[in-house]
Amino acid sequence: MSELRKDPIVSRWVVMAPERANRPIELQTTTIDERVSFNPFAEGHESETPGEILACRDPGTEHDQPGWRVRVVPNKFPALHLEPDGQGRGAGLFESMTGFGSHEVIIECPQFETNLSRLSVQNIREVVWVYRERLKQLKQDPRFAHATIFKNKGLFAGASLPHSHSQLIATPVIPITVQEEMAAAFDYFQRTGRSIFDDLIEQERADRRRVVLETSHFIVICPYASRFPYELWILPRGQKSHFETIVDAELAELGSVLKTTLQKLEMSLNDPAYNYVIHTAPLRDRHLPHYSWHIEILPRTTQVAGFEWGSGFYINPVYPEVAADRLRQTAVD
Amino acid sequence: MSELRKDPIVSRWVVMAPERANRPIELQTTTIDERVSFNPFAEGHESETPGEILACRDPGTEHDQPGWRVRVVPNKFPALHLEPDGQGRGAGLFESMTGFGSHEVIIECPQFETNLSRLSVQNIREVVWVYRERLKQLKQDPRFAHATIFKNKGLFAGASLPHSHSQLIATPVIPITVQEEMAAAFDYFQRTGRSIFDDLIEQERADRRRVVLETSHFIVICPYASRFPYELWILPRGQKSHFETIVDAELAELGSVLKTTLQKLEMSLNDPAYNYVIHTAPLRDRHLPHYSWHIEILPRTTQVAGFEWGSGFYINPVYPEVAADRLRQTAVD
Repeated sequence: MSELRKDPIVSRWVVMAPERANRPIELQTTTIDERVSFNPFAEGHESETPGEILACRDPGTEHDQPGWRVRVVPNKFPALHLEPDGQGRGAGLFESMTGFGSHEVIIECPQFETNLSRLSVQNIREVVWVYRERLKQLKQDPRFAHATIFKNKGLFAGASLPHSHSQLIATPVIPITVQEEMAAAFDYFQRTGRSIFDDLIEQERADRRRVVLETSHFIVICPYASRFPYELWILPRGQKSHFETIVDAELAELGSVLKTTLQKLEMSLNDPAYNYVIHTAPLRDRHLPHYSWHIEILPRTTQVAGFEWGSGFYINPVYPEVAADRLRQTAVD
Repeated sequence: MSELRKDPIVSRWVVMAPERANRPIELQTTTIDERVSFNPFAEGHESETPGEILACRDPGTEHDQPGWRVRVVPNKFPALHLEPDGQGRGAGLFESMTGFGSHEVIIECPQFETNLSRLSVQNIREVVWVYRERLKQLKQDPRFAHATIFKNKGLFAGASLPHSHSQLIATPVIPITVQEEMAAAFDYFQRTGRSIFDDLIEQERADRRRVVLETSHFIVICPYASRFPYELWILPRGQKSHFETIVDAELAELGSVLKTTLQKLEMSLNDPAYNYVIHTAPLRDRHLPHYSWHIEILPRTTQVAGFEWGSGFYINPVYPEVAADRLRQTAVD
């Protein structure tokens, strides 16, 4: 059984998940033929995953059968479980909870494909539509405090299966990174009456050196204090705290922006491993004027070493201005 | 030239160090013969590194010549530079500093050896003695706010050369991790009048399940909320905020404790990559009753993925009680 534990000094939560040790790690050096035949995420292999939670399906097709375009299933080796409910326990300095939560896999396409960027814009729009729908559905359950949607692309970024997919982890507690971002943004709002995200976008638009792409609703930048070479953030221009409030026109545009951004990244760095993570406000909060959801894309071309773990400092050999210039100049289809 | 930049939202510092892109990454699949002949850290190759800052030397031997046992040199591809002095600059939301600091390599032995644990206890004692001496020396220079001493063992832990070595990075700012730990420990002290480190050690000694090793001056535990399988912390039993105040008898014992702990880890996990980091109070602070220096050893057997980056949550498949039990039972020479 899994368990949530809190570090008594820095209040960082850890999920103890012994079942995760059993999951298969498929080396990406196997051949395409082998991968396709052993691929539990491909169409026709629906029985190899737990039953679907949500899917974009062709009319007339059935649950857990072929005919889907994007499919959400529970993770077969979950870090957290839907039952029992999160029960807190304390013993002296130590606090823990039973490992309640939802750990889901969003399978992004029925055919074998490793790169989200190579899917059609229409397909990617359905992926981001699914992100919104799952957040809306999880918001109905008061036991969930927060949900993180993220993608691990490539073995070096922690992916265990190469078929293009993202994951969602919903938790009864608010992750420390979200808490820290929200506290800092709230402090800025109290001091200035403005959202730090609005001010950041305004400053980046005026400066232009770190702007990669701009559309009606979004801006893509290499952030000023990038931790990793070619780190990218996608920010909505109209500041909104919760990803699940995104409207259809914005979702459609986000699909295109995500495709173009990933294509530029992959052409510039020769198909790197990367993670992306949607930072979004806690499910239980109402609209927050000081916070904005955003997507952080973290290419994994450098190994995070002892200095970073010890200090929270990062050493980045590539200035974001240099990365943004190259990404701007990289032409995509 | 390198530059320190602060993230405007979460106040995390990043070092932009374009010269780091030029350093050689030696794959550890080369043969021992090749590694020895191209090893700038071996005795007899002193001219291949910048001139030494400090060394434990045999009597009568000369600076930057053979005859040393442990040797400290500036990093040839430094993330930070000693000149010019740290000058702050601000532009709107963005704050930066010139990349002032000291980036040093502590070469732990003259002969080719990849594992600190395989060096003699006497040799390891000289390594930890050197750690203390460099901190004492850097403390004399008021421009340094903090110094982090760390080790990257193995390519997967970020090491670029296999010859056993540690590194030191001294900075004009205090790393965010140290700030967060100190703030949390101060808050606990204000509430209880006690050090959280003392209380933690007392609770772990009473419980015993996570204790790996105990000596007169030190305790080694697998922490309650371990982020990584077989994570280990070495804590001094008499609470001291600054590593540089350690006395000779404690240093000698620390050498043995470090050797035994690493031997146990390496036998249990078949010579894993790992990082260790000395967490210690800022150089400018006087003794702090609420904080304790300690060493965190982080084995790198799992890949840190998107969820961890996005949330600051970690998923650990091995309970620390299980790891500690195995480590206790692993007999070493």
